[in-house]
Amino acid sequence: MTGKTSRTLAAHIVASRPEALNEQDRHEAKRALVNFVGCALGGAEHPAMDITIRALGPYTGPASAGVLGRRQRFDPLFASLLNGISSHVHDFDDTTPSNYIHPTSPVASALFAFASVNPVSGVDFLNAFVLGYETVTRIGNATYPAHYQRGWHSTGSIGVFGAAVAVGKLLDLDERAMVHAIGLAATQGAGIRDNFGTMAKSFHPGRSAQSGYIAALLAQEGFTSGPSPLEGPRGFAEVTAGEYDLAIVTEGLGQDHLLGLNTYKPFACGIVVHPTIDACLQIHAEHEIDPRQIEKVELRVAPLVLDLCNQRDISTGLQGKFSIYHAAAHALARKRSTLAEFTDEAINDPQIVALRGRVSAVGDDTVSEDGVVVAVTLSSGDVVRKSLDMSIGNIRKPLSDARLEAKFRDQATVLASDRVDALIDRLWSIDEIGNVGEIVEAAVP
Amino acid sequence: MTGKTSRTLAAHIVASRPEALNEQDRHEAKRALVNFVGCALGGAEHPAMDITIRALGPYTGPASAGVLGRRQRFDPLFASLLNGISSHVHDFDDTTPSNYIHPTSPVASALFAFASVNPVSGVDFLNAFVLGYETVTRIGNATYPAHYQRGWHSTGSIGVFGAAVAVGKLLDLDERAMVHAIGLAATQGAGIRDNFGTMAKSFHPGRSAQSGYIAALLAQEGFTSGPSPLEGPRGFAEVTAGEYDLAIVTEGLGQDHLLGLNTYKPFACGIVVHPTIDACLQIHAEHEIDPRQIEKVELRVAPLVLDLCNQRDISTGLQGKFSIYHAAAHALARKRSTLAEFTDEAINDPQIVALRGRVSAVGDDTVSEDGVVVAVTLSSGDVVRKSLDMSIGNIRKPLSDARLEAKFRDQATVLASDRVDALIDRLWSIDEIGNVGEIVEAAVP
Repeated sequence: MTGKTSRTLAAHIVASRPEALNEQDRHEAKRALVNFVGCALGGAEHPAMDITIRALGPYTGPASAGVLGRRQRFDPLFASLLNGISSHVHDFDDTTPSNYIHPTSPVASALFAFASVNPVSGVDFLNAFVLGYETVTRIGNATYPAHYQRGWHSTGSIGVFGAAVAVGKLLDLDERAMVHAIGLAATQGAGIRDNFGTMAKSFHPGRSAQSGYIAALLAQEGFTSGPSPLEGPRGFAEVTAGEYDLAIVTEGLGQDHLLGLNTYKPFACGIVVHPTIDACLQIHAEHEIDPRQIEKVELRVAPLVLDLCNQRDISTGLQGKFSIYHAAAHALARKRSTLAEFTDEAINDPQIVALRGRVSAVGDDTVSEDGVVVAVTLSSGDVVRKSLDMSIGNIRKPLSDARLEAKFRDQATVLASDRVDALIDRLWSIDEIGNVGEIVEAAVP
Repeated sequence: MTGKTSRTLAAHIVASRPEALNEQDRHEAKRALVNFVGCALGGAEHPAMDITIRALGPYTGPASAGVLGRRQRFDPLFASLLNGISSHVHDFDDTTPSNYIHPTSPVASALFAFASVNPVSGVDFLNAFVLGYETVTRIGNATYPAHYQRGWHSTGSIGVFGAAVAVGKLLDLDERAMVHAIGLAATQGAGIRDNFGTMAKSFHPGRSAQSGYIAALLAQEGFTSGPSPLEGPRGFAEVTAGEYDLAIVTEGLGQDHLLGLNTYKPFACGIVVHPTIDACLQIHAEHEIDPRQIEKVELRVAPLVLDLCNQRDISTGLQGKFSIYHAAAHALARKRSTLAEFTDEAINDPQIVALRGRVSAVGDDTVSEDGVVVAVTLSSGDVVRKSLDMSIGNIRKPLSDARLEAKFRDQATVLASDRVDALIDRLWSIDEIGNVGEIVEAAVP
């Protein structure tokens, strides 16, 4: 009675073997993990982490698992939640352009927590990660854009499937249990977009990592769920999207790996404001302009950008990540875009506030979601213009391995500097490691 | 910037005082709690409970909280999950006819777990329960039928709000934190109807109790969520229902209590098959028919009944709760409908299986969801007919307090019999109790 999509997906995951991963996929998986662990280290001391530990720490189980970037130990389910929050809280983690999901956070957050308390070889870890990534991306593509447009933060609502199947693979679930894990994930798909610009946005991948992990553990012991969690008339696609093409979930499964379609952010904010930041930085690189001489900044952007990032009255760093006005203002005011440009302090910096008030943006169907048209009018009357079709970090203009490493180092300030390079090396050679728990320990300050 | 509906609801909950509860509301709240605790005791040893404890018990925190009907102690968040599973797993808990939500399980499951580890007076407990009940029922009414028809099991997806505000009230959250608790609840609204007839159905109120509790704890420590979790363009109503009337959430808040519109089930199965069971039992009461002489059973039911309960090929007790065919078959075959008619054994009883194969059902717009038309054809050629407009347990034909007590006793087999009456008495006088933790202890075998 089990539905076809769920059963086919479960069977593929159960049958999958690490040997099937080719060199290219392995390398791209490592890039995703280098980016992920760097982000987790960068977010490890964010107030959202401290609050979560204060609020829920007293209710957690035996402190067996390490948390990336933190000294305290917790049970692995809570460690999953924390890894998910830290790795997403700066909105600096990866993005799949085909569906705007940040896929690695929910999957790898659960996997590193699992590997912290269970022996897992590097090759099994990589394989489980790729299966989780594929699952998230395929379900994401199958339900995009309807699911996202309804207002779901799919990193949470779909990410949960990736955590469930990845942990389920390491638990060696059989096909029946894998379907139940998918069913228990489907029913915990959480995350609404009203939370963008608040701590709750990072709670979404964290909770989905934890919920997916729980789904796999319950299924392993025989907890049952519905027969057709993805494709049923009351299944995930129908309930949360309405319009979808579930053939996308299983077409070419095991043949066409989608990892190569992942991207990594150079800036710590929503992906759709990246072209604006890149263009403003290029204006500085190409012209000698004084930020104090800027009279006004006019942006033309894709309509989706305003749908997501039209916040003008902002007071927190988290809100600033979703403000097209702050994107232009900080890049023009400070001539750089680092984590420091998305702190509460930066949002309230008088120079940036003043410039933000002079930025306007209009939606334009002819501008792609990867592009922008910027016009900066100076007090001299001169107008400096810049158009971009795509920005750095775009899939056709990806961050190099070296730049990913530099991004890692910038964020890994919780670790002693001599440990940072060793950790990066271990991630690049994760497929040679006998027990991935060593990587977690290497990421604990 | 906080939206109006969420803010108004939060302000009402923060300002509410137990003294405002009138005698009628207090009595109806006690009826809901008597029914709830009985169901939790009845489900406490279900395999779904054993599996959950085996799978997740190793990851739980300090064993400080009691679980209704179980000897083991766990942290209160896990106790919430367990109370929610046990109280719903037999599908015997309460139902609000206006939206088909089982409202008490998610709210009271969290509250009893909270009260097990924090001193809570009976009057404060009752008040928090009523606030949680009102919140669930109002959000449920505001989004019914669109939310339910999309395939949400609203007991989980909306129940989470009730747990969050009820625990939030006991934590004495201020208005800002209460909005954040509502926002963190909105983003964890989980439960898809593909899981009906499986253990995962009972996971929904359990998880929503636990997630609501977590939402309140996080909000208390300052975790932030979106400004308009209910009413925003990417808020709960828009994301999960699409069609809704949010005025219903706040109209008459604090004046019109909706507790009087709750109902309690006489039979341990989906509410919409109750009229069929009642009619078949009445046929036995009124006619001397021999089940072995039944040639065929024809049912005319509301279309919703077939939407929910059209399962014919069934093998488990949980599936049987959602089979209109089993509803007629067991009542006609055994002349009774107790928990024993919804076990795996009963579903596979050859006499019931044979009779189930002779039951047919057609949807008929002229039959109400509270009614049924039954025609039983005997081998003699005689046809016995019965039409019902409403069945026992309907809001216009409610279970008496005495019958609620009898239902409690039937289910409370995990407790020594001399403790059962004492526990019932304590629930009827909960508003005189200084610390509700005593009730939890009285419900631990």
